[in-house]
Amino acid sequence: MLIRLGLLFAVCGLAATTPGEAARQWRAAHEKEILAEYFEFLSIPNVARDIERPFIGKNADWIVAAFAKRGIAARRLTVEKAPPAVFAEWKTPGATQTIMFYAHYDGQPVDMAKWTVTEPWKPKIVDGRIYARSASDDKAPIQAMLAAIDAMKAAGVAPKSNIKFFFDGEEEMSSPHVREILVRNKELLGADVWLFCDGPQHASRRDQIVFGARGVVGFDLTVYGADRELHSGHYGNWAPNPAQMLVGLAASMRNDEGLVLIEGFEKGLVPLSASEIAAVAAAPDVSGEWAGELALGRTLGNGERIEMLVNRPVLNLRGLSSAAVGKAARNVVPSTATASFDIRLVKGIDLKVALERVVEHVRGRGYHVVTKEPDAATLRAYPKVARISSEGGYNAVRTSMDLPISKKVIAAVEGARGPVVKIPTMGGSLPMAVFEEILARPLIIVPIANHDNNQHSHNENLRLENLWAGMETMAALLAME
Amino acid sequence: MLIRLGLLFAVCGLAATTPGEAARQWRAAHEKEILAEYFEFLSIPNVARDIERPFIGKNADWIVAAFAKRGIAARRLTVEKAPPAVFAEWKTPGATQTIMFYAHYDGQPVDMAKWTVTEPWKPKIVDGRIYARSASDDKAPIQAMLAAIDAMKAAGVAPKSNIKFFFDGEEEMSSPHVREILVRNKELLGADVWLFCDGPQHASRRDQIVFGARGVVGFDLTVYGADRELHSGHYGNWAPNPAQMLVGLAASMRNDEGLVLIEGFEKGLVPLSASEIAAVAAAPDVSGEWAGELALGRTLGNGERIEMLVNRPVLNLRGLSSAAVGKAARNVVPSTATASFDIRLVKGIDLKVALERVVEHVRGRGYHVVTKEPDAATLRAYPKVARISSEGGYNAVRTSMDLPISKKVIAAVEGARGPVVKIPTMGGSLPMAVFEEILARPLIIVPIANHDNNQHSHNENLRLENLWAGMETMAALLAME
Repeated sequence: MLIRLGLLFAVCGLAATTPGEAARQWRAAHEKEILAEYFEFLSIPNVARDIERPFIGKNADWIVAAFAKRGIAARRLTVEKAPPAVFAEWKTPGATQTIMFYAHYDGQPVDMAKWTVTEPWKPKIVDGRIYARSASDDKAPIQAMLAAIDAMKAAGVAPKSNIKFFFDGEEEMSSPHVREILVRNKELLGADVWLFCDGPQHASRRDQIVFGARGVVGFDLTVYGADRELHSGHYGNWAPNPAQMLVGLAASMRNDEGLVLIEGFEKGLVPLSASEIAAVAAAPDVSGEWAGELALGRTLGNGERIEMLVNRPVLNLRGLSSAAVGKAARNVVPSTATASFDIRLVKGIDLKVALERVVEHVRGRGYHVVTKEPDAATLRAYPKVARISSEGGYNAVRTSMDLPISKKVIAAVEGARGPVVKIPTMGGSLPMAVFEEILARPLIIVPIANHDNNQHSHNENLRLENLWAGMETMAALLAME
Repeated sequence: MLIRLGLLFAVCGLAATTPGEAARQWRAAHEKEILAEYFEFLSIPNVARDIERPFIGKNADWIVAAFAKRGIAARRLTVEKAPPAVFAEWKTPGATQTIMFYAHYDGQPVDMAKWTVTEPWKPKIVDGRIYARSASDDKAPIQAMLAAIDAMKAAGVAPKSNIKFFFDGEEEMSSPHVREILVRNKELLGADVWLFCDGPQHASRRDQIVFGARGVVGFDLTVYGADRELHSGHYGNWAPNPAQMLVGLAASMRNDEGLVLIEGFEKGLVPLSASEIAAVAAAPDVSGEWAGELALGRTLGNGERIEMLVNRPVLNLRGLSSAAVGKAARNVVPSTATASFDIRLVKGIDLKVALERVVEHVRGRGYHVVTKEPDAATLRAYPKVARISSEGGYNAVRTSMDLPISKKVIAAVEGARGPVVKIPTMGGSLPMAVFEEILARPLIIVPIANHDNNQHSHNENLRLENLWAGMETMAALLAME
């Protein structure tokens, strides 16, 4: 009778209760069962590169079975030699809107020796947190969705949109096959919005919705001297020193105050809208205390807050290497010197264009630029030779907060959870550009994990409170207008 | 009778022949015996750090016995836990001048696997060269002296000066005990000139006399960022990057053309005299072809020749390290970055003064300079913190070519060997300043080994021709006015 009544309300578009309330009630009565199910899921090893071993596929099977148990058809989307993605669809006949929920079930590799609280695939609750690999990143949203579905079904809260799910199985190794999966299943994966349920809450422990992520591309810059190390006493005044040349070159790219000096580096940048600027201003500012915690005597950016700064691209010198320092140092003129950089890209700046600006800058300093190891003839032919070798990378994405679908997502989450922090761009990078490129749909990130979750590291954990709050968020989004 | 006649000539100050001729004649008749004796000497392992093992002391014993066999008293000069030095004296009653001959009997450590011609202490002649550890550096002059003494005695060529010998047993590990030995035996080691018989001939294969060597001091410069590596996406626009700061700092010290930009870096330098400049101009110029051999597309110093350039100090960036490059690179803002430098010092520039100029330069760029690892409170207290840690080092020496004793040495060597190359300062460094400081006597370097001797490396070798020529040089110096 209860069920039939729920069905009636659902059909009429009126639920017996709000989705958030349904999630809260269900959780209060079923904590034990929810955690038992989640522990079962967390017990399956999930390192994507273990493709040869059966573990990674067992995670996909577990998800398919979990949806089937709830009456929702799910299946693997496979390409050769890759962990399968999982697709599921909770159909709402007559719905005019489709919402896609994204998460990933694979996790980072582990350094067993460092897992002091428990082993990575033996979940354990300590002080209100579940410790396990992927407890937060990124099985948490999957479990929250499953429990939210149970709660909605029990309370008779039905989706108003057609609901799809896509779970990646190789995100932590940069999803090398996701492009192929998207291309092959473009129709199937069509939706009006993709909700990326991944990442952490705001550091203030408030929920947040993030509308973009930066792109990234890395490159190494190597400068050459003589074809062997030279005695610095005999040759130091006469032979060009590639380490010295490299520091001159790297110093010409960015100054001590953090300003990137490469011509046109920010050209094309799409500025934030008034509402995006207002959203940042309204977010709690926690970066002030970080400087002290990190033992920093100063910060860059003229006091502008970090959430604003990350809407600009940056050239980061991530590593230096030439001959040796410390006890291993020898009195030589090094033969080569290498600096490694990453560029964080923002909306409007393509990675190929950004790299070309770097190449032009290096040329402008008198270097002959090559992409492969130069031979002796090349080194003899030019006064200065630099090699620039870049790797993969991807562009930034940023969805406008002012789109109707963005407003709906904000309204749904705030309806269940109260005011949330709204961030235009996260400082880190997510390979979301491929989704935007192939599917041409808005992407919005809705994270539920605690920020202090030890993501990617040992003793990864999820606060139970975040799992319960995540259920409310997922229910609200599953039921959103 | 022949011997008595020789003695007569010697007493009268008139030899039957020149010292060089005596050496040539003796060699022609005794090559086999000379080589047999040298092979015996070269067969004794001589790595100074093997102090716990009996080998290094056996070299000293062998030298003492070799001099005794020739009627010249020799003995060990010992300090605790160090290879012994050997002192010998060939007395010339009534002589008003004392000449000291220096060499060292220890050799560089070996990488056995790389010795392809023969094992390091199994001397072997191949293509006119003796292959063995220390065949050139620096047992060669010792054997040349011993054979020259035989030749002189046989030909009745007696020294005109009192002759002393000093053989170091730990030169290849930077002679940590030589100061103590010199201080303890200051009277015994008194002489009018020290002849340093070490190093190679000129690259043109001509004999050379070198009147000085540069000093050297090394230091590491470390710049600090946050107390841990930070995610470059989240923090890259906000947290100071120590690698970026370091390249700015290092680039401010020297430019791409090799010009050192530290204020006062050359202040105090004692310029070359007219005769020193003329001597360099007269030396064969072989550096032109080096650039091509070393695959260099340019050289520093505005075309000035290398023998002139090394009379100026240089700051050499010998190594760089921060986080990682290449495949190991990660997208982080590094926590620290280190550059390692050596300064080559010339006459008139003290190492402490040179280091202080570096410290002042770093301070001038806004850094708080420390010498020990800074704690978190120090890092928080200053916008920029740099650590400068220096190691040992020593000053340059340069003896004027115009001194009467310098002219005598030149005349003696040229009398036996024809015109020689005269170099004011070698580019490399030798720890001779301690001799100058304690003994306050002129120091002159008279090398006999071939320049292509694989010194310090595997397959070290000495051309037989250089051993025979070295005998002539040593005889001429032993008999010099």
